[in-house]
Amino acid sequence: MRQTGSFRPLDFDESTATAEPWERLHELIAAGQPAAILPFLTSLAPGETARAMDRLSEGDQLALMTLLAPEDAADVLDTMTDGQAADLVEEMSAEQAAAIVQELPSAMQADLLGDLEDEDAQAILSNMRVPRRTEALRLMAYEPDTAGGVMMTEYLAYREDQAVADVIEDLRANADRYQDFDIQYAYVLGERDRLVGVLRLRDLLLTAPNVGVASIMIRDPLRVADNTTIEDLKRFFDEHAFYGIPVVDQDDRLVGVVRRAAVERGLNQRATQTFLAASGIVGDEELRSMPMVFRAKNRLSWLSLNIILNVIAASVITLFQDTLSAVVILAVFLPIISDMSGCSGNQAVAVSIREMSLGLLRPYEYMRVVIKEGSLGILNGVALGIVLGALAFLWKGNIWLSLVVFLALAINTLIAVLAGGLIPLLIKRLKFDPAVGAAPLLTTVTDMCGFLLVLGLATMVLDKLV
Amino acid sequence: MRQTGSFRPLDFDESTATAEPWERLHELIAAGQPAAILPFLTSLAPGETARAMDRLSEGDQLALMTLLAPEDAADVLDTMTDGQAADLVEEMSAEQAAAIVQELPSAMQADLLGDLEDEDAQAILSNMRVPRRTEALRLMAYEPDTAGGVMMTEYLAYREDQAVADVIEDLRANADRYQDFDIQYAYVLGERDRLVGVLRLRDLLLTAPNVGVASIMIRDPLRVADNTTIEDLKRFFDEHAFYGIPVVDQDDRLVGVVRRAAVERGLNQRATQTFLAASGIVGDEELRSMPMVFRAKNRLSWLSLNIILNVIAASVITLFQDTLSAVVILAVFLPIISDMSGCSGNQAVAVSIREMSLGLLRPYEYMRVVIKEGSLGILNGVALGIVLGALAFLWKGNIWLSLVVFLALAINTLIAVLAGGLIPLLIKRLKFDPAVGAAPLLTTVTDMCGFLLVLGLATMVLDKLV
Repeated sequence: MRQTGSFRPLDFDESTATAEPWERLHELIAAGQPAAILPFLTSLAPGETARAMDRLSEGDQLALMTLLAPEDAADVLDTMTDGQAADLVEEMSAEQAAAIVQELPSAMQADLLGDLEDEDAQAILSNMRVPRRTEALRLMAYEPDTAGGVMMTEYLAYREDQAVADVIEDLRANADRYQDFDIQYAYVLGERDRLVGVLRLRDLLLTAPNVGVASIMIRDPLRVADNTTIEDLKRFFDEHAFYGIPVVDQDDRLVGVVRRAAVERGLNQRATQTFLAASGIVGDEELRSMPMVFRAKNRLSWLSLNIILNVIAASVITLFQDTLSAVVILAVFLPIISDMSGCSGNQAVAVSIREMSLGLLRPYEYMRVVIKEGSLGILNGVALGIVLGALAFLWKGNIWLSLVVFLALAINTLIAVLAGGLIPLLIKRLKFDPAVGAAPLLTTVTDMCGFLLVLGLATMVLDKLV
Repeated sequence: MRQTGSFRPLDFDESTATAEPWERLHELIAAGQPAAILPFLTSLAPGETARAMDRLSEGDQLALMTLLAPEDAADVLDTMTDGQAADLVEEMSAEQAAAIVQELPSAMQADLLGDLEDEDAQAILSNMRVPRRTEALRLMAYEPDTAGGVMMTEYLAYREDQAVADVIEDLRANADRYQDFDIQYAYVLGERDRLVGVLRLRDLLLTAPNVGVASIMIRDPLRVADNTTIEDLKRFFDEHAFYGIPVVDQDDRLVGVVRRAAVERGLNQRATQTFLAASGIVGDEELRSMPMVFRAKNRLSWLSLNIILNVIAASVITLFQDTLSAVVILAVFLPIISDMSGCSGNQAVAVSIREMSLGLLRPYEYMRVVIKEGSLGILNGVALGIVLGALAFLWKGNIWLSLVVFLALAINTLIAVLAGGLIPLLIKRLKFDPAVGAAPLLTTVTDMCGFLLVLGLATMVLDKLV
């Protein structure tokens, strides 16, 4: 452990807020005092660095990166979100960026370079030291949500003909470098770097130095293929109490180690992205410190799809202008019925996405969804229909109006939960992200059907309504 | 590592699906063949156990728990979601439940007992072995999203007057039990169990057996208080390359260890819960294997709040019946404008929730949100307003109608992003979960204001519209 002392959590009491840390940081940067900046950054409570960086102007951020030593700059970069870090690195010269990027842990390095424009990434790579560059290129070739995409290359490996004494000597000689590895296993490689065993470092304690590692290693250990998905990794760690698992390529060569925390982190990022996508923040993550035009454009790209779908759905209403003219209060029920069905459908969307991500529902199990959502949809549709029908009767005293409202909401709720349950499966089978497309498609269905039901049913009993 | 061999990922190709694993499992349970069940479960690909348990009837699940040895039953329980495991445990006798629960890791044990009805939890606790019971009671006292709530109690601790030889002897004597600990540090305790140092187990390799642990330990190591929030723990691990951090109570006594993976896991659960809550799955998580009445009731509790808010919002329309009668096509624009504003507002909700969870936005920073969302709202409002206004003009050729539509959508978009950005901050300050309340409140605001704007503006220029 490189630091001592107690950990000071962030103080959220605004009444004590004086100058904000980024204001002080801005002053130090403006004064160009490299000697004062590092102690100041170190003095900040965890999280304060992230917030200070978020609030600094891009100019200040760049100046700070130049004032700090590359390894300290890398630590600061590490506190920023992936998008922020990529934006900042793209503003640097390739030389400066390379010096900082090669100080990042291997997994983060590949993620960051992958987030950059191809040109920028190439320029930075060509300025990196050869071993780091080779490693980064190798890691960047993997899909992000696979074992290769989340593994790290900081691990210990020895050859099977080495002795315990060799391992201990290596540990001693490289103690400083291995400090950051934080590992308790070493891997044993056979010919052509094939993984043949795993060595519990603790076992070295109990073994004479002249014994060969091959005789105390655990042979033929569990391993995962480099293309194992993050969901399968999650299941693996659910079933095994390991901190990490070695990753091999198709020739069974050791290529990295996936830690349990990296898997949880990947799933955390995915869950966050699902929430953002379902809320209409699609593509790049948005933070309010980003340029306004970028934010507006990003949000508009999603909204313009929605406005088209909305107009299509609402055009159903134009088919029933005569009915609406005759019974204008129907206009009150149109948004209620379409909104409520949208809510019911969204619940079913969320359950389908969640069940698929847990591995409990497979994308081809349509019938299960139809049965489970259908029965619930009838129950909830009737319940909600009765409530709205009763309100309509209390308001207008017309049993036919209340029947129209009841039927429209009951039937549309059933349609909504069926559509909501099934749409994510369809999108998943088409290899798209269900969180992105489900809500707009669902709303179009529930709006169109809702308008059609209210106005269609009303037209059928028009003489009873006027 | 307790198993060897390669990890077989789940096969998702439905064309090869023959009998599903839970059908086979059902047969084995029905035949009451304990000897055949464990090998069958072990043969399942990871994830298949979870899916099989999801699909088994409650009766089969219970029978399976009885057929398996408690430690194997605990492993199976571990593959289920928290809610499923709690449901199943509540159906067991207290004796059976206690035998299984005490085989779970400490953190999971406390979580599960916390999910049960108080009565059931008490009955199970009183049937547990004393040390496990005491430990469970202690862990259950902590808030879930704090260091105490996510820490584990499986760690190694020695007294500062012990020697390296004592540690090695203990490691050797308890090798089996420590196997599951998977740790690389041991903690050194001073008087009254105060944390005084940390011992890197690797360092024992390089030390003579008669040396005291006090002389090779790292003194005054970093630690966190047991009430540290999960967000602060995340920041801590972002800044330090540790796998775990010791947790102390207010008297600086060691009470547990928080692993990085447990923090990521907690945040993952929270992000998932945010997504589900924002989609209207509130309170208990829903899986389609749960009883239909439970699912319907859970969804209805959320929908009934929405129907009330929807009716209130739509009642605005009743104030303008004369305007609507005169210009019935306004009814087409009402749902478009309220829906589109809802979409814009939801984007702002998501960004606020995300920025708060990253620690980049504090709940009292209203002005920042107003400025950042206000400028974006004007830009996007004008853009969307022009699109819809132009469509209205193309359709009806009435410049006044298109002006009404333009203004209503532009102004309501601004209102929506301001409300969407601010509502999560307000809910957070009231100590509620922003993900649960934000969407219904926002929709009410955007619906009411949207209807009011369209119909109010139309009423002002009514003679130009008819």
